[in-house]
Amino acid sequence: MNECSIAIVGATGAVGQVFLNILEKRDFPLKSVRLCASERSVGKKLKLRGEEIEVELATPELLSEVDFAFIAASTAISRELAPLAAEYGAIAIDDSSAFRMQGNVPLVVPEVNGDDLDYHEGIVSIPNCTTTPLVMALKPLHEQNAVRRVIAATYQSVTGTGAAAAQELRDQSGDILAGKEANAEVYPHQIAFSVLPHVEPFWDNGYTNEEMKMQNETRKIMHAPDIRVSSTCVRVPVVVSHSEAVNVEFSDAISPGEVREILAGAPGIRVVDDPGSNVYPTPIEAEGQDDVFVGRIREDIALDNGIAMWLSCDNLRKGAALNSLQIAEEILERDLLLK
Amino acid sequence: MNECSIAIVGATGAVGQVFLNILEKRDFPLKSVRLCASERSVGKKLKLRGEEIEVELATPELLSEVDFAFIAASTAISRELAPLAAEYGAIAIDDSSAFRMQGNVPLVVPEVNGDDLDYHEGIVSIPNCTTTPLVMALKPLHEQNAVRRVIAATYQSVTGTGAAAAQELRDQSGDILAGKEANAEVYPHQIAFSVLPHVEPFWDNGYTNEEMKMQNETRKIMHAPDIRVSSTCVRVPVVVSHSEAVNVEFSDAISPGEVREILAGAPGIRVVDDPGSNVYPTPIEAEGQDDVFVGRIREDIALDNGIAMWLSCDNLRKGAALNSLQIAEEILERDLLLK
Repeated sequence: MNECSIAIVGATGAVGQVFLNILEKRDFPLKSVRLCASERSVGKKLKLRGEEIEVELATPELLSEVDFAFIAASTAISRELAPLAAEYGAIAIDDSSAFRMQGNVPLVVPEVNGDDLDYHEGIVSIPNCTTTPLVMALKPLHEQNAVRRVIAATYQSVTGTGAAAAQELRDQSGDILAGKEANAEVYPHQIAFSVLPHVEPFWDNGYTNEEMKMQNETRKIMHAPDIRVSSTCVRVPVVVSHSEAVNVEFSDAISPGEVREILAGAPGIRVVDDPGSNVYPTPIEAEGQDDVFVGRIREDIALDNGIAMWLSCDNLRKGAALNSLQIAEEILERDLLLK
Repeated sequence: MNECSIAIVGATGAVGQVFLNILEKRDFPLKSVRLCASERSVGKKLKLRGEEIEVELATPELLSEVDFAFIAASTAISRELAPLAAEYGAIAIDDSSAFRMQGNVPLVVPEVNGDDLDYHEGIVSIPNCTTTPLVMALKPLHEQNAVRRVIAATYQSVTGTGAAAAQELRDQSGDILAGKEANAEVYPHQIAFSVLPHVEPFWDNGYTNEEMKMQNETRKIMHAPDIRVSSTCVRVPVVVSHSEAVNVEFSDAISPGEVREILAGAPGIRVVDDPGSNVYPTPIEAEGQDDVFVGRIREDIALDNGIAMWLSCDNLRKGAALNSLQIAEEILERDLLLK
């Protein structure tokens, strides 16, 4: 595989840190790396593969010098920088929701729809961190037996919001344990020792943006415009990893044994399913791991042709940084660089 | 209403404490109260309505002297004491699962099926603390439009396990914040800053006992043997109150507005549903309250004739002690005492 030059935009954030952690160990074909962040972080030095790298601004000149710009900052920054990167010959691999539903922007999980990269025009989006593990588990099953509907309830960690939310969880937890009042700033209500059925703004239909993403992104990634996905997205006092209770109705009968067998052979999935021995996915176990952990696989007793399951996935790795890096690897493999 | 004499068995436990808290303020027609617990608590003194009451053993003699024995201890103690209470003329109102599915034992939420008390023979069971809020919300809707299937995912607090679990959550949280290892004894894995898809032992069908209760108890309480309920019960690091994401399929079309209106008029339900202003049920808000809080009411985009909603309920109050006391009030009202 050819080596590539990359820029990480948002290098000092929660996802940026995970990009660096993964690059330390993963056999990624790295020629050079530029680290970008906002003005107030410029000049700060971060370590990667034994080198100290100075944080810079993502200027057009810098973007013209790299093959990939991984953007993991705010949606506003994605809106500004992704088209700029493409204009200057760098493929933007974007973590935000800004371009995901745009027709000429592939929305990609390489294990699921790597082929969609063929039509990229300089911007590739990665899915929301709740959608990625869901489609990873659904796609191999869907190929055998078409998925008709999905009901999901999520248990999402605070790092999905960002580093400030993780600090708020720690601060509130400490204050409450010390008998003090909890102070809520990042979230509208206390998150420590609580759960909030509120991830992202509400639509007029009563769903949140996060919940609608789970249906819309799943349809696009799986090329299955008729799949119905109803979810309730809930923030829980967990630091890393999102978990999901998932109920799936298939077109035809399917047994838990078949599901287990298909998923055991699916790339990026680890079946962790021996409940009698207390073996099932947990966010703690999934943290720092590349795979999507799936367990609690059983016949759904309420849905026809139904299967219920439970999954946990590191939202910062496969949910963000790892998926972005795998997309770059897939683009190199397919020889789809802009320059 | 006639006054009654009661015994609280398990008075020193988490639910026992809540019995005492409620009796302090509630207009319960109390003639006298006996507090019972295990041998090691005998002689301990607890306060109620300005009096100090000494903890005793629940002997046949003691049971023969009261109208009601509220049993909130272990299933083993319920198995032993509930029939004994009935034999000695005290109606056992039992918190455990020991007798719930027995044909001659009413399983009662007074707002839902108070009429079932008419057939009691000395033992009345209260439902599981995840079933009670579910049937409270389902029953008034079911009367208008028959419920066909329910998919639920729970977010259950540690006091559902007991006081030791609440202490374990506090200890683990403090240890993790201090950078130490978390020590798991009550649960098979760390519960602080995690979630566990595991409440009660597993059945051969892959569901937990808690999950199967949600179907079986719902059917019995609602006199609706065909309702299908598939749930995933999950323990979360919350101290008090259980929450549930609930997706319901009805026989005919029903709008979120109709659901809101029906529930707003239903006894024991508080509709808390203005998501645009960050108003929805949370476990913190439900703690210490009598009502079941329901919100996030919306059309279910995956189920036909479906409604999605979210509820929170104090598992120690309506989920346990309050429901038990309301059953006693209903029995007095209906003049159904054994003596």
